Amino acid sequence: MNGAETLVETLLGSGVDVCFANPGTSEMHFVAALDKYPDMRCVLCLFEGGATGAADGYYRMKENVAATLLHLGPGLANGVANLHNARKAKSGVVNIVGDHADYHLKYDSPLKGDLAGISNAISHWTRAAPDALSVAQDGAVAVQAARSNGGQISTLILPANTAWNNAEGPATYLAPKILHRPSNEEVVSAAKVLSQPDACLFLGHKALYGKLAQLAGRIAAKSGCEIVADFLVPRIERGQGAIHLTRMNYPIAENLGILKHIKHMVLCGSNRPVAFFAYPNMPSTPEPHDCHITELCAPDMDYAWTLQALADELGAAPKHKPKLIELDLPEIPTGAMSLEKVGEALAAILPENAIVVDESVTSSGPLVEATKSARNQDWMHVVGGAIGQGLPVAVGAAIACPGRKVVSLMGDGSAMYTLQSLWTMAREELDVVNIIFANRGYQILHLELANVGVLEAGRNAGRMFDVDNPTLDWVSLAKGHGVSAERVTDADEFVKALRKGLATKEPYLIEVVC
Amino acid sequence: MNGAETLVETLLGSGVDVCFANPGTSEMHFVAALDKYPDMRCVLCLFEGGATGAADGYYRMKENVAATLLHLGPGLANGVANLHNARKAKSGVVNIVGDHADYHLKYDSPLKGDLAGISNAISHWTRAAPDALSVAQDGAVAVQAARSNGGQISTLILPANTAWNNAEGPATYLAPKILHRPSNEEVVSAAKVLSQPDACLFLGHKALYGKLAQLAGRIAAKSGCEIVADFLVPRIERGQGAIHLTRMNYPIAENLGILKHIKHMVLCGSNRPVAFFAYPNMPSTPEPHDCHITELCAPDMDYAWTLQALADELGAAPKHKPKLIELDLPEIPTGAMSLEKVGEALAAILPENAIVVDESVTSSGPLVEATKSARNQDWMHVVGGAIGQGLPVAVGAAIACPGRKVVSLMGDGSAMYTLQSLWTMAREELDVVNIIFANRGYQILHLELANVGVLEAGRNAGRMFDVDNPTLDWVSLAKGHGVSAERVTDADEFVKALRKGLATKEPYLIEVVC
Repeated sequence: MNGAETLVETLLGSGVDVCFANPGTSEMHFVAALDKYPDMRCVLCLFEGGATGAADGYYRMKENVAATLLHLGPGLANGVANLHNARKAKSGVVNIVGDHADYHLKYDSPLKGDLAGISNAISHWTRAAPDALSVAQDGAVAVQAARSNGGQISTLILPANTAWNNAEGPATYLAPKILHRPSNEEVVSAAKVLSQPDACLFLGHKALYGKLAQLAGRIAAKSGCEIVADFLVPRIERGQGAIHLTRMNYPIAENLGILKHIKHMVLCGSNRPVAFFAYPNMPSTPEPHDCHITELCAPDMDYAWTLQALADELGAAPKHKPKLIELDLPEIPTGAMSLEKVGEALAAILPENAIVVDESVTSSGPLVEATKSARNQDWMHVVGGAIGQGLPVAVGAAIACPGRKVVSLMGDGSAMYTLQSLWTMAREELDVVNIIFANRGYQILHLELANVGVLEAGRNAGRMFDVDNPTLDWVSLAKGHGVSAERVTDADEFVKALRKGLATKEPYLIEVVC
Repeated sequence: MNGAETLVETLLGSGVDVCFANPGTSEMHFVAALDKYPDMRCVLCLFEGGATGAADGYYRMKENVAATLLHLGPGLANGVANLHNARKAKSGVVNIVGDHADYHLKYDSPLKGDLAGISNAISHWTRAAPDALSVAQDGAVAVQAARSNGGQISTLILPANTAWNNAEGPATYLAPKILHRPSNEEVVSAAKVLSQPDACLFLGHKALYGKLAQLAGRIAAKSGCEIVADFLVPRIERGQGAIHLTRMNYPIAENLGILKHIKHMVLCGSNRPVAFFAYPNMPSTPEPHDCHITELCAPDMDYAWTLQALADELGAAPKHKPKLIELDLPEIPTGAMSLEKVGEALAAILPENAIVVDESVTSSGPLVEATKSARNQDWMHVVGGAIGQGLPVAVGAAIACPGRKVVSLMGDGSAMYTLQSLWTMAREELDVVNIIFANRGYQILHLELANVGVLEAGRNAGRMFDVDNPTLDWVSLAKGHGVSAERVTDADEFVKALRKGLATKEPYLIEVVC
């Protein structure tokens, strides 16, 4: 048994059985080892950002860690943007990155680079296996690190000779480190704060869906506090049966309004809200000056325990039922295209339990609004703001939840970043409907240029904002990757296309010209 | 005049007038500034790897620095793989990377990350502008750094408020730092070495084309030494009128054979040769044990001066004419497809002065062999081994040399990494013929798996090596990006398609099924 084989056995023994891969030569012994263990599902991604984004989506839906397999520094670097998003989402990911044999690293071979430097810039945990005998234990610690502190980026660098040299056997599973908790005094104090007028419980991460969200709803029902969530969150339960909450928005000016009445903010599973960008003469944070922020439980702490402790302290029992969103489906829209109608069609047609990956950027607002009383759904956002995660996250979500319909809502500019994920959807026969909003440009940049006082883009700005001349042809792009597609220009066509896409179990793509 | 405007004026005043851009919100003031200076040519790339790779190709052909415009840490990270290639190619590149306003960086906003850490892992020079008044001078130093030591990666981080705050004016041009030279004694000693039997002059970088290559040819003619170049070099002159030299190959076993008779190796403008990867029971370096290596002049030193000094010392005058490659064109091939025939067609048809970007990986060997006596051409390779540079480098080369035909030779796996560059070719109406070798997989990995002793790929390995099921449809992918394309399956079709592609001034793509 060589080092690579002990690592694959360790990963499987630690509950990691999916590997999103883009391997190269230095990973050949690891690939050969993967070949011996068919329990490991290897999913080929034609670009590394597709692999890391898929691992992120997988974690968000499965709450379990997937591995990626990447090729030296450049391979890891290609995955960094989506690791950034995963890091902000607190998704646990284990990157296995092949490196040169350690004795080869003293030479300036073509792929030699500062692999550790790149990893340190993005990972919570980085280790280069020192020898074959250590690989298994390092792998177990890597998985442990990925599962600790609420989900982390963990990178194990695997020099080729540590993979090919003889080793002993796999290492045993290591439980994640125990999460920190606030003190009882802090819980008591926060419970008092939440009972005051104009208080809000600011939630994040896994507290925004399922049992924890319902628990938070009980706390709100008993204490009278508002529940608020950030604009971009890893996963949020929406539609019928979800708790009522206020979601922040993108513009800082709007967020100042959303929070203007809040005097007390208790953070639980979330960092404090902050403006996406700084703007001249605007504040960096959206809360009023006289708002007191209680940092009760950070995202890397035990916010599940904390919410229960808050509920207990407040006496929020199961009988304090939160007011939940009731089903209210719109009519099927017809006629000329609008984002509002796309949203109404999604609301009317998307099935219970759908997973929606929203990277539609400037198109998102009307879609979110129209679907608020739809059937129960999970929505996922680009928490780290690095565009190009939507299609990869949809891949990971579909692999995590084979029984559920996945819909990606993509800006055309965003989708172009990692369009190679369409091929992985076709290869793995994933049940994903991709909706591309073809507004032919980075529309947000037109808005942002106006925000800095330039109301009309000149030639250079226009040529950097507009993805036109030529326009992208998403039907051909999809076909090129093996995905069926169609272009729609009015609401009736969209409704028909959406129904067609949802009816198959194969990936589908709809280019919405808007 | 704000900081951004002083920076654009400084870049233009320093001779940087092309910017390969993928901007975001934090760069809006810089974009607004670019709008005021139409002398700066802004080229939109739909993925950052396209921008950095284009800057690399631009430098290699123009010997001048281009700027890139990138968006925070994730934007820079997306460009790192091709910056890695540029770094190995010693291409000078100035990255302008927008960051949050400095006072906003204390918050955990979505795009906040370790931007400096990423930059430090790839750049020779990194600086974050401390305030608007410093931006112009920092820009001048950034350009100077990119032009120093033979070409470097230089990254100027531009916090948004240093762009939007008031500044004074542009900074003046700074000449690159003076290059180090070997001592006269070292030159004299190296000249003696080269006059011995079984000696070779190992050349790299700008010594492999144009006047420096001819000078090296004279040195070889006078001293009797062999000229050797590495397998992957940034730019090499080939075909009619180029000097004869021995090019190393990819497999270490083959390189051991190529160098087996060499007893003295003088490095000039090149690092010592080293195996691409380490393999069990194979050496890391290809020279014989009894070969003496003279490290005369590193790539970051003044090898132009050194070659002249060597020629002077040896008395290699213009009359010592090197033997040059003579034109010997093959017949136009017909019949069934083979890589040899593709190579013959290229040799027969490609015009004088064509620029060939070779990222055809396993397809490359027969193409290189067939074109050795073709018309005079420049070829460019993936010096850093990070696939996905070919299409971007072709973009940069076409912008650098508008009068010359550019041909990219791409493996299908490689081309998928940065296929978004096809759109930039269409947008900028670049004269590039892209030839995609559709062998439907990472063929090199099949070879490498065999190299580690696994002769037959199992299910997991096969699914990670083969880009099939579905096959990629490159004609549709090209069409989706606005590039005309066709698929060819025999030599006659290829010849016809190549002629068609070369006849237009627009980009074209040929999918070669092989």
